[in-house]
Amino acid sequence: MTYCLGILNRFGIVMGSDSRTNAGVDYISAYKKMFKFSLPGERAIMICTSGNLSITQGVITQINRDIQNHESENLYTLSSLYDIAYYVGSKSRQIQDRDRTWLEKDNVDFHCNFLLGGQVKGEEPQLYLIYTPGNFIKATQETPFMQIGETKYGKPILDRTITYDTPLEAMAKCALLSIDSTMKSNISVGPPINLVMYEKDSYTIRHTLELRLGDPYLAKMRKLWEDYVQQAFEAMPNIEWKYKDDDSQVDILID
Amino acid sequence: MTYCLGILNRFGIVMGSDSRTNAGVDYISAYKKMFKFSLPGERAIMICTSGNLSITQGVITQINRDIQNHESENLYTLSSLYDIAYYVGSKSRQIQDRDRTWLEKDNVDFHCNFLLGGQVKGEEPQLYLIYTPGNFIKATQETPFMQIGETKYGKPILDRTITYDTPLEAMAKCALLSIDSTMKSNISVGPPINLVMYEKDSYTIRHTLELRLGDPYLAKMRKLWEDYVQQAFEAMPNIEWKYKDDDSQVDILID
Repeated sequence: MTYCLGILNRFGIVMGSDSRTNAGVDYISAYKKMFKFSLPGERAIMICTSGNLSITQGVITQINRDIQNHESENLYTLSSLYDIAYYVGSKSRQIQDRDRTWLEKDNVDFHCNFLLGGQVKGEEPQLYLIYTPGNFIKATQETPFMQIGETKYGKPILDRTITYDTPLEAMAKCALLSIDSTMKSNISVGPPINLVMYEKDSYTIRHTLELRLGDPYLAKMRKLWEDYVQQAFEAMPNIEWKYKDDDSQVDILID
Repeated sequence: MTYCLGILNRFGIVMGSDSRTNAGVDYISAYKKMFKFSLPGERAIMICTSGNLSITQGVITQINRDIQNHESENLYTLSSLYDIAYYVGSKSRQIQDRDRTWLEKDNVDFHCNFLLGGQVKGEEPQLYLIYTPGNFIKATQETPFMQIGETKYGKPILDRTITYDTPLEAMAKCALLSIDSTMKSNISVGPPINLVMYEKDSYTIRHTLELRLGDPYLAKMRKLWEDYVQQAFEAMPNIEWKYKDDDSQVDILID
């Protein structure tokens, strides 16, 4: 399994990913799922991947090849992030055209999703979610975050905290906590964690982070979080129970 | 969808449930999913249900009928909670025997789960999860909570806080917060919330609660929780980024 998220707001973009890949429960390994591309001063692009690893690695390989071979259409030549989203989806379609019928023969799950975030000079920062069929949606002010993979455990913390006005550093901490919560609740999501913070109009990727298993920052963050949760419980007003001292309480639905 | 949870520890049992039922997104209604039974001084039993509503209502109806008809085997005569778990599973099997082939013809999901918590005099409090096939597992000291329905959103808060030594009132607040987080992240889980707190060796259900939409306690709890989350972020040490000021950073996987 995988957990990746992207958050977009007025200050920029934060993207994060775990690194665990598993084929069943008896084959667990670590693969990077976060890829960064930049033409400093011109554009900065981050891609996170989830789903079938052979397909997503194939897509990233093709993207790199196109850059190196100076193809007319590549991450550094396409004129908008919308076009880049379509381009990434097309690369995914190409690999699927080649492999999907063979994967289906063996009942191998071929689904794959991509988060694409970044900024091309002349545009606002943008964040896209690209689905298996290659179609895609864009984050908007109303829903400033997107997730792929094992999304549910880490969603409540985002729902409660992230707005279009949250400062970038707070967004980054929230992203880390969202990934940490997912790791704690689902062993198929695991370290190293990769995190990127992109400041709007910087057109370069300055802030990156890789947190390995047992990283002291992660441990400190987890401890502090758990202390605050504990304090929150203690501060909560007592529940006003519907108190019954003596009753034979039975819920009878029918007579 | 549904979200119900049960927590068992050295002090007793807390059980909670939402009340939303939906057939598609265009038919949403409220049904109680928490049922309480007690012979004060002798036994206290709580049941929460998830899954196909016609089956779970059928099971609760049969359980009530057996009590009213003074059947030799019913919730008040069976000598242990283990036997009661088997009995509830058997009732579920009976309804499935009657309905399941018909449901399958129309591709209707017939899955249903039950949480069964309580205490029979002479035993310790116990908590069971009964699956669709009628088989069941028991909560233990290592894993003191069980969930049915839409379980993922509300799990991180439990994973981080609940132990075998958590006081009952704190367990109840945590259960509420777990349900509230789920409601916030998934509209198919919704109020009223039902909550029960059972004190070990009391053999009666004294503490119950029903929180309706817009309940002031729920609003206060949510606000306080969000304030603490905010404070936690502010208190967290700044991330030590791997800071790069000038680089053309590209992840090349192949050459």
